[in-house]
Amino acid sequence: MRAVQYRTIGAAPEVVDIDKPTPGPGQVLLEVTAAGICHSDDFVMNLPADQYTYGLPLTLGHEGAGRVAELGPGTTGIDICTDVVVYGPWGCGTCHACAQGKENYCSRAAELGINPPGLGAPGALAEFMIVDSPRHLVPIGDLDPVATVPLTDAGLTPYHAIKRSLPKLRAGSTAVVIGTGGLGHLAIQILRALSPARVLALDVTEEKLALATAVGAHDVVLSDADAAANVRKALGGRGADLVLDFVGAQPTIDTAMAVAGVESDVTIVGISSKPAAAQVGFFRQAYEASVTVPYWGSRGELIELIDLAHQGVFDVHTETFAMAEAPTAYERLAAGTLAGRAVVVPSL
Amino acid sequence: MRAVQYRTIGAAPEVVDIDKPTPGPGQVLLEVTAAGICHSDDFVMNLPADQYTYGLPLTLGHEGAGRVAELGPGTTGIDICTDVVVYGPWGCGTCHACAQGKENYCSRAAELGINPPGLGAPGALAEFMIVDSPRHLVPIGDLDPVATVPLTDAGLTPYHAIKRSLPKLRAGSTAVVIGTGGLGHLAIQILRALSPARVLALDVTEEKLALATAVGAHDVVLSDADAAANVRKALGGRGADLVLDFVGAQPTIDTAMAVAGVESDVTIVGISSKPAAAQVGFFRQAYEASVTVPYWGSRGELIELIDLAHQGVFDVHTETFAMAEAPTAYERLAAGTLAGRAVVVPSL
Amino acid sequence: MRAVQYRTIGAAPEVVDIDKPTPGPGQVLLEVTAAGICHSDDFVMNLPADQYTYGLPLTLGHEGAGRVAELGPGTTGIDICTDVVVYGPWGCGTCHACAQGKENYCSRAAELGINPPGLGAPGALAEFMIVDSPRHLVPIGDLDPVATVPLTDAGLTPYHAIKRSLPKLRAGSTAVVIGTGGLGHLAIQILRALSPARVLALDVTEEKLALATAVGAHDVVLSDADAAANVRKALGGRGADLVLDFVGAQPTIDTAMAVAGVESDVTIVGISSKPAAAQVGFFRQAYEASVTVPYWGSRGELIELIDLAHQGVFDVHTETFAMAEAPTAYERLAAGTLAGRAVVVPSL
Amino acid sequence: MRAVQYRTIGAAPEVVDIDKPTPGPGQVLLEVTAAGICHSDDFVMNLPADQYTYGLPLTLGHEGAGRVAELGPGTTGIDICTDVVVYGPWGCGTCHACAQGKENYCSRAAELGINPPGLGAPGALAEFMIVDSPRHLVPIGDLDPVATVPLTDAGLTPYHAIKRSLPKLRAGSTAVVIGTGGLGHLAIQILRALSPARVLALDVTEEKLALATAVGAHDVVLSDADAAANVRKALGGRGADLVLDFVGAQPTIDTAMAVAGVESDVTIVGISSKPAAAQVGFFRQAYEASVTVPYWGSRGELIELIDLAHQGVFDVHTETFAMAEAPTAYERLAAGTLAGRAVVVPSL
Repeated sequence: MRAVQYRTIGAAPEVVDIDKPTPGPGQVLLEVTAAGICHSDDFVMNLPADQYTYGLPLTLGHEGAGRVAELGPGTTGIDICTDVVVYGPWGCGTCHACAQGKENYCSRAAELGINPPGLGAPGALAEFMIVDSPRHLVPIGDLDPVATVPLTDAGLTPYHAIKRSLPKLRAGSTAVVIGTGGLGHLAIQILRALSPARVLALDVTEEKLALATAVGAHDVVLSDADAAANVRKALGGRGADLVLDFVGAQPTIDTAMAVAGVESDVTIVGISSKPAAAQVGFFRQAYEASVTVPYWGSRGELIELIDLAHQGVFDVHTETFAMAEAPTAYERLAAGTLAGRAVVVPSL
Repeated sequence: MRAVQYRTIGAAPEVVDIDKPTPGPGQVLLEVTAAGICHSDDFVMNLPADQYTYGLPLTLGHEGAGRVAELGPGTTGIDICTDVVVYGPWGCGTCHACAQGKENYCSRAAELGINPPGLGAPGALAEFMIVDSPRHLVPIGDLDPVATVPLTDAGLTPYHAIKRSLPKLRAGSTAVVIGTGGLGHLAIQILRALSPARVLALDVTEEKLALATAVGAHDVVLSDADAAANVRKALGGRGADLVLDFVGAQPTIDTAMAVAGVESDVTIVGISSKPAAAQVGFFRQAYEASVTVPYWGSRGELIELIDLAHQGVFDVHTETFAMAEAPTAYERLAAGTLAGRAVVVPSL
Repeated sequence: MRAVQYRTIGAAPEVVDIDKPTPGPGQVLLEVTAAGICHSDDFVMNLPADQYTYGLPLTLGHEGAGRVAELGPGTTGIDICTDVVVYGPWGCGTCHACAQGKENYCSRAAELGINPPGLGAPGALAEFMIVDSPRHLVPIGDLDPVATVPLTDAGLTPYHAIKRSLPKLRAGSTAVVIGTGGLGHLAIQILRALSPARVLALDVTEEKLALATAVGAHDVVLSDADAAANVRKALGGRGADLVLDFVGAQPTIDTAMAVAGVESDVTIVGISSKPAAAQVGFFRQAYEASVTVPYWGSRGELIELIDLAHQGVFDVHTETFAMAEAPTAYERLAAGTLAGRAVVVPSL
Repeated sequence: MRAVQYRTIGAAPEVVDIDKPTPGPGQVLLEVTAAGICHSDDFVMNLPADQYTYGLPLTLGHEGAGRVAELGPGTTGIDICTDVVVYGPWGCGTCHACAQGKENYCSRAAELGINPPGLGAPGALAEFMIVDSPRHLVPIGDLDPVATVPLTDAGLTPYHAIKRSLPKLRAGSTAVVIGTGGLGHLAIQILRALSPARVLALDVTEEKLALATAVGAHDVVLSDADAAANVRKALGGRGADLVLDFVGAQPTIDTAMAVAGVESDVTIVGISSKPAAAQVGFFRQAYEASVTVPYWGSRGELIELIDLAHQGVFDVHTETFAMAEAPTAYERLAAGTLAGRAVVVPSL
């Protein structure tokens, strides 16, 4: 079967022919219907050899959707031909975190050598993929795989970040979204669906702010040197109750800290290429503003997100590519010329 | 000044002339701009003499809006001419419940003889009213007092009932609203504003169900003997995550219990004239369905509700009356011929 | 191998010889080290034929501890010779409830025919047992299996009931425990370990109350017709913040409702042989007292409970029996002559 | 009456004779029975003139206990001769934060010029003090004012910091307390009373660690350059679930961040004389470790803390001083030679 692999440190990913895998006991073979391409793939492929730990060759793709093609011996709980998306942050399934479905925070994954598909295990950028357990699948019914597959990471990551802060998003509260791209444009929609918070979005161009408005932001502010002052002005001098930074560069983190109000959450989601950090100390930020860096989301949260998708609330911006075009998609991702999430469709 | 008083057990309320009150230390005098009329007034005026504990004569009205007319000695924190609504369930202000703003659950009110305005203390159905402390006022800015005054009880009561259940109203959840009148039609709107839950409304006529749909219910079901089965069918066999019963009669309580799902909340808000109760025991309802009867709401919740009103989410159905027409409003309330919440406007 | 089976409706359980099972893909074979005997076994064996749904013959035992003896094909995440206890309320592992480890509330178990061991699947009252997945095992290290095995149900059920109410058990609060037997005496210890609540225990004899005091109750009250008044007196007129009823008969439920305070939880855990129920309605109980009937607990909660056992906080009262004595243990359970939880130890 | 005042920038506090105050409408006059001396007084008196904003002369003392001596006109809800402690972080009483009793986070205090006693308003280091409202008093019954007055700040501040993190302090969790002085030694006791967490304390001398053990710490570790490694070793390689830093210097903050586990809270409570801060960014700390700097606590929390004191759980280390000795107490505070919280008793 065809697959997109990262084969040589520093080289571009390649489309190759590899053996179709066979599911072992408890496993599931998916015929891939859609696979998302993500900035973190790019981050990984730019690591120097001494920091790269994902093995070679690596079949890429940690956002996957597919149809159940074959069940391994003893696999139960999912039927052949079911359309699904893949929960990516695989864990051991038995530790305290995994016992609550928070496999993104599995305490034994490193020790046991468990890795997400596309980030160690063979990923979704292939005609078929192995999923290690039915518990890592969420049926999607008649949802479009292309529009749905980005929810597994670009949707789940902001969903988790927002859900943990919901008690702060009371009527009269404000959420600030910095960066309105793949994750940010979904964050705005999730905030609108889950909470009564007023949503204020920041980005660097009027075009991106127009998108933010189109998907539900109540207010927009240009992300420049005056951003913090302009946000404060828009909020009537009050601080925000939640600030989500999907950029994670030092200037956006500084803006996030400056606009955060008393008892707020500041959540850094984006990874900048240059190291950046929030400084948390006395007299630096509003009292009890809590600053954190979360990672992906839980199994239960992905189920909720797919339920939300069934309500028709999402307008997911995607651009589709055939498997052979995957290297091009990665090039355009790096060049910043994609108009939405890049999704590879093997059947194209 | 003119006021509407309940003066004789069993008699209709009367419009009378009484002295304009003077605010004492720490108190506030409001010029009333709007006062809501509520089913519970009717309940109180139908109590036999041996159960009636609110004193006579009683100036009615526990939903009040007004403009600050005069401050008592030492009163601070509110300015003359501020437009406000009145938080009704007054408490001592110092016990553990009151220290969290939950004056509706004050542990010392009975012992100290503290009563809500219109339910012991002189109420809002008058040209002027005394509010015992600025903490019982919430500024409303330029909101219309007539459309806003029902929020103090008909809005705050469902708001509290919904807010305590918000963790259960995840994406993919369902809330069932039984009774779509004064409180119910606001509950539907609050549910839509605060949560992603699918809202299913029950009432006894197609006309009332049309109102429910108009204010945001996703589905409606006639409240009859087949209601529970029809709700279950509409939910695909699943149980509801929150059931709010604004009627509180035995048949509606039975429906509520029958449609409640695992780990749900069943919240009885309406008081029926005949005693009614849910039976909670093994093999009677879904596991961990929690059944409760709350009372009104907290100070913080009223502030949040007014913030929500400022976002323009509410469509409050009211019918206005001049002070002289208040007795008529009570008659129509009892006859069930009001088309919305009755609001008395002293300036009419 | 030897096993204790319920073979004939209405007959006593029998010790029989059956084939030693073989673990299938993903499964685990345990050599049983201890198995608890529970009132609910008795409840099940007293059901008339038309209500009995667990299959015959049924190997009893839903509280199990053992040592991993063999792994089925593809089973990972647990090592041979690990000492474990079994999480009993097996679910599908993939639905929204199971994705949070709340397999006790699996939405698909009935549809998929999944049953707990000893309550449909072959149970722990045997020399060996099959556990369907490593996720249903919790390692116990060097804890004594006999003292630990009751935690899987007699401990987990109150742990879950208490954990969901922890936000109400603030400093200054009170928890009332009705019934201080197998579950109740553990509930007292869990309350003391997890919360600052004052614990008040009720039972019918001074001897049982002495046990309650010995395991940590601050106060005890005889469970008789005056119990509610005596509890109120002991609480200085205040209501309790949590009432746990481990008896579940009408008189104890009535006591529970009468002593519950504003915003409290009333949690019915015990099943009485005669149907019983709490009546929840206006003017019947304190405002916002929430009444519920939960079932068992979650996977994460069992892990936490085993962590707690490692802290050495538990004093679990047990009486051990050899396998051949299991029928006697059931007789003494029914006769009420056990002095602690009956635990069968196959190696005796 | 005698009072201890800060009268000249940079000078030591002085014992002076001033007029006994008279309570205005709604106010309360207390005869002070005990007043705590706090590091933050020292911090304030070391501010340069251009940063000092508390007014001169300033009667010191933001930890106060007293007996109600006189009520202003219209003051209700508290009786003459009641023994009380004073809730210090006074707010407006009406904003959203104050409506929940979180006057420490009042959104209008700055605008309205409201200050805590001893930090702007006349404080407790005097024979009598004015409290602006009965809501700022908590009755203490027969508790010793000397042992109780430190709870109003040295107790309330850690109580709030711990209470917000209680959901993370499950069975099997660990809390790390850095600095075991005035606040830290109470934090250890509060953690033990409220949660099942294992408590690990850090300080710089064996003598201080012996105190930590005496008041309940399960483990102690010297706070030196190897502290983080030693804590990790003591925790078996796991991270802590809550880290409370009562020192707030850069080395302790660095230790705090290094030992914090996934989904933990890192709470900086101590103010160092040199600016210090935690760096929060990708790959710097465990995922979803939340870092925050809270301030004091809420009204409800002080009530709970006094309830806890009534349970007899506290061993508060104090050293008492007569009013005339207050300047000496401040000298010894600055010199670090106090053996416990310094408490001034006007009647000595």
